[in-house]
Amino acid sequence: MKAIVLFSGGLDSTTCLSLAINKYGADNVLALTVYYGQKHKKEIEAAKKIVEYYHCHYQELNLKPLFENSKCSLLEGQASIPHESYDKQIKETNGNPVSTYVPFRNGLFLSVAASIAISSGCHEIYYGAHQDDAAGNAYPDTSKEFNQAINQAIYLGSGNKVEVIAPFINKTKKDVVKLGLELKVPYELTWSCYEGHDLACGKCGTCIDRKKAFLANNVKDPIPYEDESL
Amino acid sequence: MKAIVLFSGGLDSTTCLSLAINKYGADNVLALTVYYGQKHKKEIEAAKKIVEYYHCHYQELNLKPLFENSKCSLLEGQASIPHESYDKQIKETNGNPVSTYVPFRNGLFLSVAASIAISSGCHEIYYGAHQDDAAGNAYPDTSKEFNQAINQAIYLGSGNKVEVIAPFINKTKKDVVKLGLELKVPYELTWSCYEGHDLACGKCGTCIDRKKAFLANNVKDPIPYEDESL
Repeated sequence: MKAIVLFSGGLDSTTCLSLAINKYGADNVLALTVYYGQKHKKEIEAAKKIVEYYHCHYQELNLKPLFENSKCSLLEGQASIPHESYDKQIKETNGNPVSTYVPFRNGLFLSVAASIAISSGCHEIYYGAHQDDAAGNAYPDTSKEFNQAINQAIYLGSGNKVEVIAPFINKTKKDVVKLGLELKVPYELTWSCYEGHDLACGKCGTCIDRKKAFLANNVKDPIPYEDESL
Repeated sequence: MKAIVLFSGGLDSTTCLSLAINKYGADNVLALTVYYGQKHKKEIEAAKKIVEYYHCHYQELNLKPLFENSKCSLLEGQASIPHESYDKQIKETNGNPVSTYVPFRNGLFLSVAASIAISSGCHEIYYGAHQDDAAGNAYPDTSKEFNQAINQAIYLGSGNKVEVIAPFINKTKKDVVKLGLELKVPYELTWSCYEGHDLACGKCGTCIDRKKAFLANNVKDPIPYEDESL
């Protein structure tokens, strides 16, 4: 095994997985999916279909007990998911993370991946953080500065064995989709929506961002939405 | 709650817990203990007794599934624990971590603590890494450089909410015991030995280090050993 990819079954991490497979081959890549108490399992169902598509290795972990005190709106039993753009949410949160920020999710999942990487002889961990997620401190664990620090911590703490690769850290979601289209990522299999309806809602922050990213590439998003407007 | 302490029930982390309680009071401190598949539960039994002694908050987590591919000799089903000093082990491992290095343990446990800290409004995470553990790269996730990087990652990734405090990062184990004696740490309740016998073996790396640290303070270690020699 060469690389572990943090893999949610969403647009960014599927593009990231495709990139790692393109480099190392599916046989050398482990897609790592974490269940942490989300309100629905649509992303995880999508993740499984995408792994079948690529024939790469797959591991699913249950870290729900770690988040039992979290008020994050993605989690079961917590407040509703906002139906508005990130720009609007950022203005309301006044520089604090948005309600869908899962406490230290990337730091924690990268650390989990680092431990598994050391045990299985992998030297790289990929994750799909991009600059739109970091804007306005919406998701502080997606910023360039965070990425640099966690990469350093994992490199040093693993005895210089494991590195973190964030291929989209200087890219927008539009750029991610552009790259993914070139890589022929099966976006029709991905699930980004924070809600767990039959169709993606089209109204939550991540649906809005996704629709915009396809539109900016002059391509129709292959998944249907309850609300197709922008 | 003000602080979370990574707490194994061993000498270093108990001194660390005592320090945090001395600063904030037991009511404001959460001792976080992780079961990760150790060969025995002596440390966790010790942890519970120490928590009863201090009357602080306590949380135990089971992260065993994360370490199922690890060859670390502390884990159930893996090779025997070396009965020799760290100095000797470091010479044999040639700059690589020792066999009792749990892959990225501190990075992972600090990340878990960071997530819990954000959810529960804590601003500090304490852990007991000291310079003897970092020597010769025996435990790379105890070095000053690692500590600096993980602190930075947690601070940034938490949206500037949580800091890592490593009060012993510039201290030797001798210094830790000196401080602990001043704080009247109940060392008779702690368990450091890597083996799980009735008495501490006195021969594994951590027993040897512990005995030396008390001797250097001209104090008798209050726990009995199978082998009292040094």
